[in-house]
Amino acid sequence: MDENIDIAIIGAGPAGLTAGIYAGRSKFKVKIFDRGVGGGTMATAHLIENYPGFESTSGMELAERMINQCKKYAEIKEVEPVERIEIEGNLKKIKTENNEYTAIAVIIATGLTHKKLNIKGEKEFGGRGVSYCATCDGMFFKGKNVCVIGSGHTAVSDALYLSDLASNVYVLNNNDIFNDDEINIDLLMSKKNIKIFYNVELEEIVGKNFVEKVLINDKEKNEKFEVNTEGVFIATGEIPNTEIFKILGLNLDEKGSIIVDNLQRTNINGIFAAGDVTNNPVKQVATAVGSGAIAGLEACKYVRKFKDKI
Amino acid sequence: MDENIDIAIIGAGPAGLTAGIYAGRSKFKVKIFDRGVGGGTMATAHLIENYPGFESTSGMELAERMINQCKKYAEIKEVEPVERIEIEGNLKKIKTENNEYTAIAVIIATGLTHKKLNIKGEKEFGGRGVSYCATCDGMFFKGKNVCVIGSGHTAVSDALYLSDLASNVYVLNNNDIFNDDEINIDLLMSKKNIKIFYNVELEEIVGKNFVEKVLINDKEKNEKFEVNTEGVFIATGEIPNTEIFKILGLNLDEKGSIIVDNLQRTNINGIFAAGDVTNNPVKQVATAVGSGAIAGLEACKYVRKFKDKI
Repeated sequence: MDENIDIAIIGAGPAGLTAGIYAGRSKFKVKIFDRGVGGGTMATAHLIENYPGFESTSGMELAERMINQCKKYAEIKEVEPVERIEIEGNLKKIKTENNEYTAIAVIIATGLTHKKLNIKGEKEFGGRGVSYCATCDGMFFKGKNVCVIGSGHTAVSDALYLSDLASNVYVLNNNDIFNDDEINIDLLMSKKNIKIFYNVELEEIVGKNFVEKVLINDKEKNEKFEVNTEGVFIATGEIPNTEIFKILGLNLDEKGSIIVDNLQRTNINGIFAAGDVTNNPVKQVATAVGSGAIAGLEACKYVRKFKDKI
Repeated sequence: MDENIDIAIIGAGPAGLTAGIYAGRSKFKVKIFDRGVGGGTMATAHLIENYPGFESTSGMELAERMINQCKKYAEIKEVEPVERIEIEGNLKKIKTENNEYTAIAVIIATGLTHKKLNIKGEKEFGGRGVSYCATCDGMFFKGKNVCVIGSGHTAVSDALYLSDLASNVYVLNNNDIFNDDEINIDLLMSKKNIKIFYNVELEEIVGKNFVEKVLINDKEKNEKFEVNTEGVFIATGEIPNTEIFKILGLNLDEKGSIIVDNLQRTNINGIFAAGDVTNNPVKQVATAVGSGAIAGLEACKYVRKFKDKI
């Protein structure tokens, strides 16, 4: 089966859903392909308090609201992951396991995956102390002790952000140096409530209903020790979900994020990108919907001009 | 009275409120100054259906929700318009009628003003047929007749956007040419359901509860005629609210919008801008909150580094 559509959106997180709302309201034929049932990383957040309009909501509830809203304007193809995109002249072929679609414009909104530590307690305490986003969840640890795991820019930024909120911040660095701008590292060193451990490995996250402490291995001394903490912020890396697009020749930055301009255009004509998969500087629901709106409207302009030519 | 604060936000529309939520959650002392009670242009929208998370809401309701949420993290100074900002070394003096504040960072989120025609019916039918935003309100006129007033890029874009939704689009151009890219003008000419009137003036908007028709003056023939229409989209110009900031030497684009980079920084250290007052390409609530989140977080980073130095 080969079906013609105007705009194919890959990924039904907040960026893809917003692109769907905007593109769909322009009356073009829009389909959104998702590997699951939609919502993206947002749907996994236990509590969201910084998306404007919702004082406090679960990620799942916000996801459901956006999904239902989007369905008024665009079709969401659930559990139909895109396996390949091929460029055929001015058109794009979208291939899923059993179907093929021909689209005029494509919006990539596949988000990113946080690197996991794969240690005991990490999965069990997800949303109950373990977090992958300090900006999202920092407020829940006001006046408490937290750990940050990592050695790069995100870990340093997270520790600084959390130092203004938490009582104490313990930074667990697997290496003996931080990999960030000097100015940020100096700032990290200057904070009285930040304590840094070098050459350590987080071995286990322990608690009853919520995180209570972590077990750490000092690799140099070959000694184990514990730290009491209620929050564990894992900042060991983010992988933009661009695997299937590599063959297209999209320009990516050093982190693997898709490079877009201020209209969310990639280097390939008719392919746009929005949300966490792009090099947009902030990864939040608020910024994802912003970039999704722009991508949706720009894709419409592209389709409008294209249809005029044929 | 001179009060020290960390971050001053000027304007409590969706961009300013979101900046307030993000900056306030970082625990800095944040004050938002508004000439009214907050909500910005958003609060004047009768119906919003394209802000993700709300299938259908009044602008006022959405504004109230964002205002209440923001008040958890930042103080909103209602009916306290900023009259002047002065730069004193690394600090910024914020002057209102009766008070003075010293801030480390400033976020400008003062929005824009739509040029009014100041004709009979324009104000009376606001939200009942008269609109200043095709992307916002186009869907409400699906299958109906609409007019677009203007001769620039916004008028052309609005007419094209509406031509995919409305039954007929009448473009009322006060001049004998359009001022836009050739490609857009060609597209405008090619649309079968768009009819263009040149050298005409809109004289009156007429209806009972909702707009029913418009009275038009043909300036060349010096004749009056009527067109039946349910929507009147006024696209005669937007004026970014930057009057009080001109003295600062902020870089503005040809429309008078504040030029920002992808971190919402202006050309002046410690001054950020977000939302409709900037050269961000799309003016929507969704994009305002995106840029507000970035501005809020970046202002915090600036304050954090600044405080470390003193």
